[in-house]
Amino acid sequence: MPPSSLILSRRDLEFLLHEWLDVESLLERPQYAEHSRETFDAVLELAERIATEHFAPHNRTADENEPRMVDGRVELIPEVSRALKVFADAGLMAGEFDEQFGGMQLPHVVGQAVFAWFKAANVGTAAYPFLTMANARLLLAHGSREQIDTYVGPMVEGRWFGTMALSEPQAGSSLADITTRAERQDDGTYRLTGNKMWISAGDHELTENIVHLVLAKVPGGPPGVKGISLFVVPKFLVRDDGSLGERNDVVLAGLNHKMGYRGTTNTLLNFGEGVHTPGGRAGAVGHLVGEEHRGLTYMFHMMNEARIGVGMGATALGYTGYLHALEYARTRTQGRPPTDRNPSAPPVPIIEHTDVRRMLLAAKSYVEGGLALGLYCARLVDEEQTAGSEADRARAHLLLEMLTPIAKAWPSQWGPVADDLAIQVHGGYGYTRDYPVEQFYRDNRLNPIHEGTNGIQALDLLGRKVVMQDGAGLRLLAGTIAATTARAAGTDWAGFAVDLDAAVDRLTRVTATLWGVGDPAVTLANASAYLEAAGHVVVAWLWLEQALATAGRTSDFHEGKRAAARYFARYELPTVHTRLDLLESLDRTVLDLPESWL
Amino acid sequence: MPPSSLILSRRDLEFLLHEWLDVESLLERPQYAEHSRETFDAVLELAERIATEHFAPHNRTADENEPRMVDGRVELIPEVSRALKVFADAGLMAGEFDEQFGGMQLPHVVGQAVFAWFKAANVGTAAYPFLTMANARLLLAHGSREQIDTYVGPMVEGRWFGTMALSEPQAGSSLADITTRAERQDDGTYRLTGNKMWISAGDHELTENIVHLVLAKVPGGPPGVKGISLFVVPKFLVRDDGSLGERNDVVLAGLNHKMGYRGTTNTLLNFGEGVHTPGGRAGAVGHLVGEEHRGLTYMFHMMNEARIGVGMGATALGYTGYLHALEYARTRTQGRPPTDRNPSAPPVPIIEHTDVRRMLLAAKSYVEGGLALGLYCARLVDEEQTAGSEADRARAHLLLEMLTPIAKAWPSQWGPVADDLAIQVHGGYGYTRDYPVEQFYRDNRLNPIHEGTNGIQALDLLGRKVVMQDGAGLRLLAGTIAATTARAAGTDWAGFAVDLDAAVDRLTRVTATLWGVGDPAVTLANASAYLEAAGHVVVAWLWLEQALATAGRTSDFHEGKRAAARYFARYELPTVHTRLDLLESLDRTVLDLPESWL
Repeated sequence: MPPSSLILSRRDLEFLLHEWLDVESLLERPQYAEHSRETFDAVLELAERIATEHFAPHNRTADENEPRMVDGRVELIPEVSRALKVFADAGLMAGEFDEQFGGMQLPHVVGQAVFAWFKAANVGTAAYPFLTMANARLLLAHGSREQIDTYVGPMVEGRWFGTMALSEPQAGSSLADITTRAERQDDGTYRLTGNKMWISAGDHELTENIVHLVLAKVPGGPPGVKGISLFVVPKFLVRDDGSLGERNDVVLAGLNHKMGYRGTTNTLLNFGEGVHTPGGRAGAVGHLVGEEHRGLTYMFHMMNEARIGVGMGATALGYTGYLHALEYARTRTQGRPPTDRNPSAPPVPIIEHTDVRRMLLAAKSYVEGGLALGLYCARLVDEEQTAGSEADRARAHLLLEMLTPIAKAWPSQWGPVADDLAIQVHGGYGYTRDYPVEQFYRDNRLNPIHEGTNGIQALDLLGRKVVMQDGAGLRLLAGTIAATTARAAGTDWAGFAVDLDAAVDRLTRVTATLWGVGDPAVTLANASAYLEAAGHVVVAWLWLEQALATAGRTSDFHEGKRAAARYFARYELPTVHTRLDLLESLDRTVLDLPESWL
Repeated sequence: MPPSSLILSRRDLEFLLHEWLDVESLLERPQYAEHSRETFDAVLELAERIATEHFAPHNRTADENEPRMVDGRVELIPEVSRALKVFADAGLMAGEFDEQFGGMQLPHVVGQAVFAWFKAANVGTAAYPFLTMANARLLLAHGSREQIDTYVGPMVEGRWFGTMALSEPQAGSSLADITTRAERQDDGTYRLTGNKMWISAGDHELTENIVHLVLAKVPGGPPGVKGISLFVVPKFLVRDDGSLGERNDVVLAGLNHKMGYRGTTNTLLNFGEGVHTPGGRAGAVGHLVGEEHRGLTYMFHMMNEARIGVGMGATALGYTGYLHALEYARTRTQGRPPTDRNPSAPPVPIIEHTDVRRMLLAAKSYVEGGLALGLYCARLVDEEQTAGSEADRARAHLLLEMLTPIAKAWPSQWGPVADDLAIQVHGGYGYTRDYPVEQFYRDNRLNPIHEGTNGIQALDLLGRKVVMQDGAGLRLLAGTIAATTARAAGTDWAGFAVDLDAAVDRLTRVTATLWGVGDPAVTLANASAYLEAAGHVVVAWLWLEQALATAGRTSDFHEGKRAAARYFARYELPTVHTRLDLLESLDRTVLDLPESWL
C-alpha cells in the first residue's frame, strides 16, 4: 500500500484551500453555515485515508485485470465493489449534495479536493462515483420533482450508479449526428432505439440499478444539435414505490479495451434491440428530462463541471506521478555530479543531478499549477451558486465560462507531461510495470480525448468564449489578472508581474487581430496554439497568485512554491510569445494545406 | 496485415536517398562498386516486402504475448522465430557486412533505410538483428582475428544472435559503478562474476548460441570508467572447429515486464553463479576484446551507431503512427467545418478539419525530419569510412560526433509526439487496443531512456561535443548549415534561411556565453534546453535541405515536403529562441534548488 504522501499532498491542499483561496470565508454563507474549518479538515482526512487504504491498493490489480464480459455480464475484481461501498458508507458520494438528500452540503471546492484524492489513488475506480454525482447533479438541476425523488436519492446513497450516454460509434465528438431515436408514447414515456459508444460504467453489477442519461432525437425535431433531447433510462424500471421492476431494453453489446483507465468498465450499449421487452414490447423506456430538444443545453450544464473534473483527474494523475518520481529521486543513488569526477566517490541520490531536479521542478509546476487551476474553478462554482449578490454570481459565471476550456485542456496537456517526466526520472525502471508511473502515463493519455477533445476546447475558447458578450469574458479575465499583478508591484514578484501583464496585453491584442480578419476559418486556423497560449497565461497568473500567498512564510514548503513559481515565470511563460507570434501572423500553412499533400 | 503504405513511405525513402542524399554517388567507391541503383532498390523492396509480410502481422500478437520464463527458459511466440529466419535467409542480417562474411557490402545509409522498415513494422522483433549486427560490427572493429572468425560469421548468417551487456541493477546510466568482475586465468581467458540488468535478447532459443558482449572490471584496474574491460561471453562455449561445447555459466535470472517493446526479451542475467560449471568450475568464461581497461572506448564506438539507430527506431515508430493517423483521417467521417454549420450536410472526413491537418502536418514534420536526420547521419558514417580523402573522412567523423546526441535524442523526443498526435487524430478509438497507435506510443516511450537517456545526451552535446577540439565541431556544423542557407538565397526559402542563420548565430554565441562563465555546473545547468534548441536548429536545417531538393518539382509529394518545411520554419524553429533566452540568462533556478524545496 503506497503511503498517502505518494498519492497527493495534504500540505498543498491546505495551502491552496486555506492560505490561498480562503475557503473558510464560505462559512458565512447559509448553504455552508453548518460547516467549519474542522469539518472541512475532517472530510479531507477521511478522503485521504479511504483513498490510501481502499483505492490505491487495487489500482494496479484493476489495470491488470480489466473488466470482462462473461455471459453478457460484466465481471470486475471484487476490490472495486468493496472500495466503493466504503466510499459510499462514509457519505462521500453525498458530500456536495444538500442535507435533504442525506448530503454534507460541502462547498464544491472542498468536494473537488476530496475527489482529487480518489482520482490520484485510483482513477479507474473513482470514475463510478464521479459519473454518478454528475448524473445526480444534472437531474437536480433539470429533472422533474418525480425524477429527482426517484433517482437522486439512491444515487447519492450509492445504491445506484449513473452514466452519461452521449457518443455513438459514428458520432464521437459530433453530437449533431447522433441517430438514437426516442419515440413519444401515449403514456408520456418514450421508447429509445440506438447504439451508444464509450459509455463509462455502462454496465456492471456494483449496484442494483444503473441510471443512464441518454441523448436521443425525437422524430420530427430540428436537425443537428437543436433536435437533441435528454432522457433518463434506468437499467431496471422503477416502480412508484421506488422498488425495481422490469429489466429495461438496454443491452451490453461489448466492452472497449483501452491503453489505460482499464479499471473503468467502458461499454457499447444497445438501446431498444428487443432483448428485453418492458411492458411487453421492445424499446428502451426513457423519461424526458426537461423539455424536448433542449437536451444538449442541459448536458452542457453538467459538461462544464465534468470538464473541470477531467482536468482535475489529469492533474491528480500527474501529481501522483510527480510524488513517486520525487521519492525515487531521493532514494535511488547513481552517478556523481559533473563537478565531482572522482570515480571512487560513492554515487549520489539522483536528485542531486541538476537535470533530475529540472524534471521534478517542471513536473511540480505543472501539477501544482493544475491543482490551483482546478480548485480556483471549483471555487468559482461556489461563487456562481452561493455568492451574496447577483453581480458576484454573474461575474463568477462569466469567468468560469472563460476558464472551463482551459481547466479541461491545460491539465490534460501538462499532467501527462508530468507523468512522462516521472518515467524519465525513474529511467529504465519507470518503463517497467514493476513501478506505477507507467500506468499513470497510460491512464492520463485519455484526458486530452474525453469530454471534448482538446481541439474542441480550443474552438470553444477562441470561437465562442472570448467573443461572447462582446468580449466581456476576456476583459473580465484580463482585469482579474491585472488585480493580481497590481498586488505584485513592489514585491520580489514585480518582474514576473510585468511579464505577465505583457503576455495578457498581447493575448488581448492578438484576439482582436484574429477576430478582425472577417473570416472565421482564418480566425480559428490556429485555435490550438491560442488555447495553449491562453492556458499558459492563466496558469502563470495562478502561480503568481500562489507566490504572493507565500509572503512572509519561510518553510521549505513555501520556498518550494516560490521556486516553482520562478520556474513557471522563467521556463514556461516565455513560450507564450512564440505561439502569439504565430497567431498574430495569421499563418495559413495548415488552413490552405490540401489533403493530398499529406 | 497492414499494407506497406502504413508502415513507412517508399516514396520518402526514394526522395531522401536519391533526390536529396545522392546515394548513387557512393557507387564510385571501391567498397560499393558492385552495387547500382537497381541493387539498392531491390534490397529496399525486399525489406519492404518482408517487413510487411513477416514482421508487421505479429506486432500486436507479440505485444499481447510477451516473452515468458518457463523452467528457466524463455518462451516466445513462434512468429518471431519464423520472421527472423526469413530475414536472415534473405541475407538481410548480412546487408552491410563485407563479402568475405557473406555480406552485401551495402552502404550504411542504405542499410539504415532497410532497417527502418523493420523497426516501423515491428520494433520488438527487429531488436534481435539490430543488436546482433551492432555486436558483430564491434567485434569486427576491435576483436581479434580469432574472435572475428569464431563469432562474426555465425552472427552474420543469423545462426547466433548477439547482445550488449552493459547495465547493472545498481548502475543504470553510471557505468563507472559496475561491479561485474573478470578474473584473468592462466590460459588467457577470464572468469566473470556479476549481475547484468536490462539485457535485451539476453536469453531465448531463437538461435543455437548467444554472443554476449559484456563490460566488466579486472581486479586491480583503475577506478571508474577507466577500469572497464570488454569481453565476449558466449552462452555456449565454442570449440576450435566452431561447434558448440559446454554451457557457459550465464544464467537467466528474470525477465523485465515493460510498458511497451514487449516483443523483445529483456533480461536480468547472472554471470558466474555456478549454475553451470564450464571446465569443471564456476564462473562465466569470457574472452577479452582488445586490451584491458579500454572496454568503454570500444563500446562507445558501437554506441554512436547504436544511438543513431535508436533515433531511427523512434522515427520509425512515429512514422508508422503518422501514416496510420493519415489513413484514419481520410476515411473517418465526423462533423463539419466551422464554416459550414448546416447540420443536415453529411459529415466530412476528419482530415477536412483544420486542427486535424495541423496535427498531421506537425507529425509529418517530426517523422520526415527525423528520418532525414537519421539517414544524413548514416550517410556520414559512409563518408567517415569510405570517403576518398583523409580530410573528408575526418570531417565526416567530426560532424557525426556533433550530431550523434541530437540524432539519438531529437527523434526520441519528437517521434513519441508524433505517436501522441496519431492517438489524438484517432480520438477515443486511438486509445483502444483495437487500433495500433496506442502500441506505437507505448513502444516509443522507451527511446528517450535507453542507449543513454536524453539528459545524458544533453551533457554529451554541451559538455563534450561543442567544446572538443576547441569548438571545431560546432564551427563545422555552423559552416555546413551556412552552405545550405547560402544556396537558399534568391529562392522561396530565403526567409527561412535568414531565420535559420539567425538561430545558428545565436546558438554559437550562447555556447560561448555558457562556456565563458568558468563554472561547469552553471554551464551545464540547462543542458537539456541546449540539446532541444540545437536539435530544432539541426532539423530546421535538414528541412531547408529537403525543401531545396524539391526545386522544380510540382507533384503532391514535393508540395507536401515544402508544406512540412514551411510548418517547421513557422511553428517549430521560432521556439528555439525561448530556450536560447533561458540559456543566455544563465538561469540558476534549478541549479540552486535545494532538494528539500521539492
